Amino acid sequence: MPLTDPDRLFPVDQRLRDMARAFYESVRDLPIISPHGHCDPRWFAENNRFPNPAELLVIPDHYLFRMLASQGVALSDLGIPRADGGDAQSDPRAIWHCFAAHYHLFRGTPSALWLDHTFEHLFGLEEVLSAETADAYYDHIDSCLQRDDFRPRALFEHFNVELLATTDAATDDLRWHQQMRDSGWSGRIITTYRPDAVIDPDFQGFAANVARLGEMTGEDTASWDGYLAAHRSRREYFKSFGATATDHGHASARTADLSRHEAEALFQKALKGGCTLQEADLFRGQMLTEMARMSLDDGLVMQIHPGSHRNHNEAILAWHGRDMGFDIPGRTDYVDELKPLLNAVGLEPGLQIILFTLDETAYGRELAPLAGVYPALRLGPPWWFFDSFEGIRKFREAVTETCGFYNTAGFNDDTRAFCSIPARHDVARRSDCAYLANLVGTGRLRESEAFEVARELTYNLAKQAYNL
Amino acid sequence: MPLTDPDRLFPVDQRLRDMARAFYESVRDLPIISPHGHCDPRWFAENNRFPNPAELLVIPDHYLFRMLASQGVALSDLGIPRADGGDAQSDPRAIWHCFAAHYHLFRGTPSALWLDHTFEHLFGLEEVLSAETADAYYDHIDSCLQRDDFRPRALFEHFNVELLATTDAATDDLRWHQQMRDSGWSGRIITTYRPDAVIDPDFQGFAANVARLGEMTGEDTASWDGYLAAHRSRREYFKSFGATATDHGHASARTADLSRHEAEALFQKALKGGCTLQEADLFRGQMLTEMARMSLDDGLVMQIHPGSHRNHNEAILAWHGRDMGFDIPGRTDYVDELKPLLNAVGLEPGLQIILFTLDETAYGRELAPLAGVYPALRLGPPWWFFDSFEGIRKFREAVTETCGFYNTAGFNDDTRAFCSIPARHDVARRSDCAYLANLVGTGRLRESEAFEVARELTYNLAKQAYNL
Amino acid sequence: MPLTDPDRLFPVDQRLRDMARAFYESVRDLPIISPHGHCDPRWFAENNRFPNPAELLVIPDHYLFRMLASQGVALSDLGIPRADGGDAQSDPRAIWHCFAAHYHLFRGTPSALWLDHTFEHLFGLEEVLSAETADAYYDHIDSCLQRDDFRPRALFEHFNVELLATTDAATDDLRWHQQMRDSGWSGRIITTYRPDAVIDPDFQGFAANVARLGEMTGEDTASWDGYLAAHRSRREYFKSFGATATDHGHASARTADLSRHEAEALFQKALKGGCTLQEADLFRGQMLTEMARMSLDDGLVMQIHPGSHRNHNEAILAWHGRDMGFDIPGRTDYVDELKPLLNAVGLEPGLQIILFTLDETAYGRELAPLAGVYPALRLGPPWWFFDSFEGIRKFREAVTETCGFYNTAGFNDDTRAFCSIPARHDVARRSDCAYLANLVGTGRLRESEAFEVARELTYNLAKQAYNL
Repeated sequence: MPLTDPDRLFPVDQRLRDMARAFYESVRDLPIISPHGHCDPRWFAENNRFPNPAELLVIPDHYLFRMLASQGVALSDLGIPRADGGDAQSDPRAIWHCFAAHYHLFRGTPSALWLDHTFEHLFGLEEVLSAETADAYYDHIDSCLQRDDFRPRALFEHFNVELLATTDAATDDLRWHQQMRDSGWSGRIITTYRPDAVIDPDFQGFAANVARLGEMTGEDTASWDGYLAAHRSRREYFKSFGATATDHGHASARTADLSRHEAEALFQKALKGGCTLQEADLFRGQMLTEMARMSLDDGLVMQIHPGSHRNHNEAILAWHGRDMGFDIPGRTDYVDELKPLLNAVGLEPGLQIILFTLDETAYGRELAPLAGVYPALRLGPPWWFFDSFEGIRKFREAVTETCGFYNTAGFNDDTRAFCSIPARHDVARRSDCAYLANLVGTGRLRESEAFEVARELTYNLAKQAYNL
Repeated sequence: MPLTDPDRLFPVDQRLRDMARAFYESVRDLPIISPHGHCDPRWFAENNRFPNPAELLVIPDHYLFRMLASQGVALSDLGIPRADGGDAQSDPRAIWHCFAAHYHLFRGTPSALWLDHTFEHLFGLEEVLSAETADAYYDHIDSCLQRDDFRPRALFEHFNVELLATTDAATDDLRWHQQMRDSGWSGRIITTYRPDAVIDPDFQGFAANVARLGEMTGEDTASWDGYLAAHRSRREYFKSFGATATDHGHASARTADLSRHEAEALFQKALKGGCTLQEADLFRGQMLTEMARMSLDDGLVMQIHPGSHRNHNEAILAWHGRDMGFDIPGRTDYVDELKPLLNAVGLEPGLQIILFTLDETAYGRELAPLAGVYPALRLGPPWWFFDSFEGIRKFREAVTETCGFYNTAGFNDDTRAFCSIPARHDVARRSDCAYLANLVGTGRLRESEAFEVARELTYNLAKQAYNL
Repeated sequence: MPLTDPDRLFPVDQRLRDMARAFYESVRDLPIISPHGHCDPRWFAENNRFPNPAELLVIPDHYLFRMLASQGVALSDLGIPRADGGDAQSDPRAIWHCFAAHYHLFRGTPSALWLDHTFEHLFGLEEVLSAETADAYYDHIDSCLQRDDFRPRALFEHFNVELLATTDAATDDLRWHQQMRDSGWSGRIITTYRPDAVIDPDFQGFAANVARLGEMTGEDTASWDGYLAAHRSRREYFKSFGATATDHGHASARTADLSRHEAEALFQKALKGGCTLQEADLFRGQMLTEMARMSLDDGLVMQIHPGSHRNHNEAILAWHGRDMGFDIPGRTDYVDELKPLLNAVGLEPGLQIILFTLDETAYGRELAPLAGVYPALRLGPPWWFFDSFEGIRKFREAVTETCGFYNTAGFNDDTRAFCSIPARHDVARRSDCAYLANLVGTGRLRESEAFEVARELTYNLAKQAYNL
């Protein structure tokens, strides 16, 4: 018995299942467009072998280590590095054993679907991972990783990725992107401008980051004009490495449209570290509107990923640093928060803003009504905890009736777990095709339309939304 | 192949489908009760021919023009009049072409279901609307509109409408209702008392509106007592035109129960235009409780439609005025907000208050628990963006287990798109029957009970809830 | 035809239905673990006959009387005692008639499923309850209640209850538990420490309750140290009656981690009745963290049941007192509110905190992400209005993908309606098995895994979560 059901995620009714399979088969082999994610460009620049199964599959995947943490496994036992100099497990086989022994925790989760897909389709494994099969798994995967056809670039091509975007800090020198370009490799990997560290007054080292931005651009970032000019300069630099988008990970969706005088004063206060929490939020909000205005000029698509309460646990932050699985979603308001930006530029024909959410209640109540009327808005796919079968189903069921398919932006995998990319796109394609089959089966869409829409959701809409 | 699937919206499982169809067939031909909506009474008073397909089907339907706006079509290109004197497209065929060329945007939306139902069942069309079929559609519909059996009153009768309520401002003279009555036509069209413009201090021209209310009633509306007396007088006048209900479209569900002295002082402040945003909200809240008390005396049912953030875009408001598709739902609290009113009158046996929401999260958490215990409360059907198959499914799934069927108020079409009324009621009947079939198929309701409940949901509950 | 469908709540697709039935049959006869509920320990201590059908089935069940209230039946007509000395119906047959005549109100609700299950499986009734069958029902049930095999202990054994927890106030002397123990009866009924009345400054008689706590423990509860010591003492006393858990029913999930000095000052203010609403909330929040710290020492599991707006209607509170069906859920935040507690003790391996919610929007957005990373957290089952087929379905669909099955805590019936216990567990078992069949049918879980998980959800997880 294969690890994965060939008809997984399709409706159980036979007529609908046949339909969903037909839609899926029509899009299964389309190239992968991955316009937002967190793969490390260095992998493709250097094209070194991945060192071992744990470093390939476990350590970069916060979905995995957060679940094990929830059942009492210490992050350091999974090889997650300590930021405070403490010890972490360094034996990859021991990490793999710990992971394998807890694999039953993932029953019913997308991680299990993604991993089983990877185990079966990439590595040709056939038995379920468990404490018993842990060594056989480890040895087999490790031996694969010795082979040249498992190097990063070979996998990129094997995965049929047409385009992959990385996400890089505004002050990143993009050296790995440069090295890729210099190598003459034909794989299309582009960058994305992510300026949180130079926009968020609460970000660690904000003033130093802004100073560094000044050095890199030759602009006087101690002044408001110079600061904005530096952003423009870096955006151009990122564009020269293929960037078609910016990305903004703010605590809220707050936007503002202050007078030049107010914005300048707030910026000076932020530089001096004197902002209250409210003022910091206001400054971030002002910068979203500034970024939108720059997008009108340079054509970069804006992505807004709001609403994660980052680093919820102080001890974990002290021990392991940022992005260690203790980021928890919260309620996010869009209607009032986006109003200043939308009143400033929301009707501009040239602008594209892709909205994400970790608050599913906003889909039907706020996001679909906004995207269903403002020309500048598109809805990004279900994000993070909602990048799943149920997440996609609820998203489509909540937004389609109000904003249709054409105000959505296709799929993003948003991952740093490189090998999961084909599996994630496969889950999204299957989930969308299941949804379409349900619509056709209940007379809400014609079969011929469903084939067209399946292709839009899989391929065309992502390219359009990201100007690719 | 017909434009619409005869089994649309029914479950796909054959046994459930057969059951749903049987329930549906038992209620399909029941007359339409439309106790809340926005049709123009003038249509029926004058009974003139509808001028052309664009003015009949596109221009009055904000569901349609908001979707086209979201993809960059200017409202004025769809013939939406400019409030600022700017030009709008005046050629109905050009408007129709623009609409037809974008018809694919409505895939998967209730608008497509409603329109295809209308095209097929009212106009006998068989091909899908598109840029290619736009002219044929236009010509055919236009020729129908020349016929006497497509005049408003003939359609009203053809649609099998037993009762239609319009919604009229408190200061409306109800001339069209008078003209209908004078004409001796037997169609039952009643009015509804909608006093927002004389209750909401933030409404444009509030003080002038209140003064006009005084003129119309001979009451001194510069005084609190006179103001309340004027409401009572107008409510009686509306009742003389058949009104059985009032309707209140407030920004929130806030209610208040101030002392006479506080209420009076607040009213005086509102008249002078001196209310803060909070005070204006408080005054609206106080007036809901005053209206509830008047309902105890005169028997009018109260409808509360809270939670729409009106006129979200300032440019659209300046160019085109109110109600132009840029109204966006927001979070709405009911538990704390309704408490003052419910403590004042919520246990009164004679009172009926019908609650609506644009915040689906309130169904299960707040609205069903409230309606499941307070005798004064009934839940209105899914409203606006949620008047759809998924909207109805989620509503029933969220509220039935807590407040049952008998604390809900049947269906409202709430539309100004007259021709969509049969289609909307058809979608609601099918969706409810699909839900009932699911209950029976999973042993949660007996088949004989489902036939009874189908009739309640389609016909009886609306009549009971609105005292018809 | 039996009152209940033997395949109720299973999926309608035949293949899935067969699978769900197989899962269900594998767990149907497992003993009932009821680790949280509100049965009266006196029933089992005295083991007297239940007096009549109304006092057994109607009067203790707020699900029933709130629905009848919603349709205008006065609580006193249902025999609900008046707290103000007013009259209440005292004829049990009249109460039963009133209930029976309104039984159609429960169509589609879990109450109907539970009652029909009880009528059929406990009393052997076969006709639907209605005004017509009311007398036959009454006479038959009443005659059963005369029999010794319908006494509380006999029913407890007949229901196959392995363990039942009651919930008792911190100042309860546990006399009924003592009497049970003294009787030598083998039924395992344990208590649960519920200290709301001595923790919540807004609770009626708070200062007197705290004084009483001091008398019972010999501690000086006028001091902060003595107050904490008194809690420790009572927790030990409750443990001596089998308690493995505490339970906290606060208005919000707010927690705090104040300095000793601040906590002490706040406690003194609370004792004097001088807390603002905000300070009272802060004190309750501080006490959750104190309770968590005590749990680290004594091993009691913490249950947090937040978010009910108690006694929404003042007249009902005055007439009938607390817990009379007018408790309404509200929005509940967990991410910010639990942060102080989780930063204090959330990573402790020895701690178990079970979170409940009346706000379904928190499942996917907040609760599953929190429970999916913090080792101290488990999610309790759907509570109160959500203890239902749809409630369980939505819960599993919302949380499984993020926190899996193993961060959930099995089922609670949480009822004071003793006879409904088997029916409630049956609904939960069927609903979970239906969910599992859906997962297997769509390739998200292996069949062999589903059998294992079904047993976990029915039996093992409850025992583990509650340290049983």
